[in-house]
Amino acid sequence: MEKIAVWGFRWAPPFAQGLVRDLRVRWALEEAGLAYESRLIGIEERTSDAYRRMHPFAMVPVLESGGETVIESGAIVHSIAEDCEVLMPAGRRTETLAWMFVALNTVEPPVQNLSAMDLLHKEEEWAKLRRPGAVDAVKVRLSVLSERLDGRDYLLGRFTAADILMTTVLRLIRHTDLVAGFSVVDAYVKRCEARPAFQKALRDQMADYAGNAPVAA
Amino acid sequence: MEKIAVWGFRWAPPFAQGLVRDLRVRWALEEAGLAYESRLIGIEERTSDAYRRMHPFAMVPVLESGGETVIESGAIVHSIAEDCEVLMPAGRRTETLAWMFVALNTVEPPVQNLSAMDLLHKEEEWAKLRRPGAVDAVKVRLSVLSERLDGRDYLLGRFTAADILMTTVLRLIRHTDLVAGFSVVDAYVKRCEARPAFQKALRDQMADYAGNAPVAA
Repeated sequence: MEKIAVWGFRWAPPFAQGLVRDLRVRWALEEAGLAYESRLIGIEERTSDAYRRMHPFAMVPVLESGGETVIESGAIVHSIAEDCEVLMPAGRRTETLAWMFVALNTVEPPVQNLSAMDLLHKEEEWAKLRRPGAVDAVKVRLSVLSERLDGRDYLLGRFTAADILMTTVLRLIRHTDLVAGFSVVDAYVKRCEARPAFQKALRDQMADYAGNAPVAA
Repeated sequence: MEKIAVWGFRWAPPFAQGLVRDLRVRWALEEAGLAYESRLIGIEERTSDAYRRMHPFAMVPVLESGGETVIESGAIVHSIAEDCEVLMPAGRRTETLAWMFVALNTVEPPVQNLSAMDLLHKEEEWAKLRRPGAVDAVKVRLSVLSERLDGRDYLLGRFTAADILMTTVLRLIRHTDLVAGFSVVDAYVKRCEARPAFQKALRDQMADYAGNAPVAA
């Protein structure tokens, strides 16, 4: 097979390091034991015609594999998981995909909403007024997750691709103590982050950033 | 095969009628030519222990089929599409799923954000302050969609399950003139909504609500 390539950013500011979505893909590839190389672009290059031919929304990640490109972290992780028993048990494919959608369509929106509010709009009046409601919306999701994970090590009992998405979603609010407030969820995130494949993926993403850090003026 | 059942709400207030997510599933089943029955719950019944054993987040829809239940509209539509060439062409499965994730993870969050702001928080100060920014975020997505759909009848050229999700996402802002501002996208939504399967699904969802409308005091 042609070498797999994953597109990510050349560099990200410290508040975003470890949160950019190519981490999901790197982690899935590590769990699957698939070698890959990273391809890096600058924030401004994303909107070039060349990149947008590959990704209309000018986002990362993109997966290149066997001459095909795949966009959307959920779809990319699914494409890796489909051929990998570690990520998607043969008898539980629909259930795994359902929990992947739970992560990205039920949990991520309120989490991402709060994250953007805190990291990008902190000083704006609307964000100050809205923050308590946004926090409550996150807590509603964390509360259900806590019940789900009580007595389970992972969302489906055993580790699957859904845990990759859920963990990387919950990391978006690492600047808050919200996850820490739900001890079962907190232990779950730490359990997932302790996996060697996650550690390797994060290390490699950080190494790419370190090698491309802007020179201080 | 055991009869397929789709869980939805017994009734929804007029502003939400035609937007509740079991519509996605009904539409997919109609496109696939699969008979189903609707099972309806009241808003308050969602949080009953019985319902939450089926759906931890107490949401609709849930699909019941062959003794299995599936949650998350994206996963349910995928499970229907997997066996249906109309919804997911054999050679383009990864691409179809990628555009399903585009609809639910890239387009829906800003659209849903604006929708919730207008329909649930209209009178709140934060919503008034934030609305212009939320509108801009939606326009960024609509602009890319417009380019994508220019010269294409559907997201992948031909109709797929991704169009079901994208259309039902864009309907969430039917109370605005945002989609109308992008004529290519507007024509696309109308093209999708004109499909007999959509019309049938909507009619049946409306009939369920009409049959269960609260009696005026």
